[in-house]
Amino acid sequence: MMDLYDVIFKRRDTRHFTSEPVPDEVLEKALQAGHAAPSVGLSEPSRYYIIEDQPLKQKIKNLFDSSRQQAENQIADPDKLDKHQSLKLEAITSAPVGLVIATDLSVLDEYVIGTIGTSETLTWSTACAIQNIWLSLTEQGYSMGWVSILDYIAFKELLNLPEIVKPLGYFCIGKPADDYDNRPMLETHNWKRKSSAPHVVKITQGL
Amino acid sequence: MMDLYDVIFKRRDTRHFTSEPVPDEVLEKALQAGHAAPSVGLSEPSRYYIIEDQPLKQKIKNLFDSSRQQAENQIADPDKLDKHQSLKLEAITSAPVGLVIATDLSVLDEYVIGTIGTSETLTWSTACAIQNIWLSLTEQGYSMGWVSILDYIAFKELLNLPEIVKPLGYFCIGKPADDYDNRPMLETHNWKRKSSAPHVVKITQGL
Repeated sequence: MMDLYDVIFKRRDTRHFTSEPVPDEVLEKALQAGHAAPSVGLSEPSRYYIIEDQPLKQKIKNLFDSSRQQAENQIADPDKLDKHQSLKLEAITSAPVGLVIATDLSVLDEYVIGTIGTSETLTWSTACAIQNIWLSLTEQGYSMGWVSILDYIAFKELLNLPEIVKPLGYFCIGKPADDYDNRPMLETHNWKRKSSAPHVVKITQGL
Repeated sequence: MMDLYDVIFKRRDTRHFTSEPVPDEVLEKALQAGHAAPSVGLSEPSRYYIIEDQPLKQKIKNLFDSSRQQAENQIADPDKLDKHQSLKLEAITSAPVGLVIATDLSVLDEYVIGTIGTSETLTWSTACAIQNIWLSLTEQGYSMGWVSILDYIAFKELLNLPEIVKPLGYFCIGKPADDYDNRPMLETHNWKRKSSAPHVVKITQGL
């Protein structure tokens, strides 16, 4: 049993995993935590696809490599490119479990409260679930890494997802092999520093 | 100190609050929890605007009322409309604190890792922060309600937000006056039932 804040501050976007398998019950517990997150209008749009097949992981890795190359082609500064190339940004083939987390937009076939202003509230609901999953995995001694350097259209085709299902990313799950000194990996590896406080503005008077 | 899962399962989307004020330190602690959420490429795009001004809250409430009316005009089934009209969907003028949570898309002026596939990863980062804030408020005996029935363009204009800042919603914060029998309010009020388990598919073979 771990205190909420210990979990919140321990949680990391992990790209280094051991090969230790992830028991089914660990993943189930994490997905139940995700299921307890709010969903706009109780629409429950989140969908989970567990991937353990190594050849499929390799195909996803190839997609990632190609998108990463495309990103690096756009970095003009040689020092920045050099640093970027040295960063480990995924663990697709090495993390024991791959999880695709997606939003099923077909829930909009029925009227959903809270989607009239924007239906992006559906993917935002799924992102809330993702955060709960991350916290639960951390609490259980596991971790997760969010891979979004992907050609999402090719990714959907590769997974044979229905047209109406929108993936938010590929998530690597396993036991962390590095705690990055309890800071974001991109900070530990000198890419960028995390600021110490959130950006808050108090609107005290009418506009 | 509360166990992670107790908090996760206790958290509710709240629309009924007492008038008890929210101490600054409660909100600060919650925003620090939000700040500990992941952000894509360590871009830290989340922005927070605290609103305590009653006339401004009233203007936001008017915007909500107009969008709600627009939504209800589209409900043809009279029973459904009746039920919809009976639901309390916000607490804009009664919750002690209003918080606008937004994503500053200007972080893309610099190269951000993880935004080449889709820059929606920025709002998804903010949604992860929202979930942490929700959990922290719950742990501290407070709660939050996400209002998304809004004309987001008019909402931005009203708040005088910069063009490049994208609000995810207006959030009502205070002490909950109702725990909805520890179920989603939309379930307690017979709008919709929450399913007992998440939607999970295991992809065991290559495609």
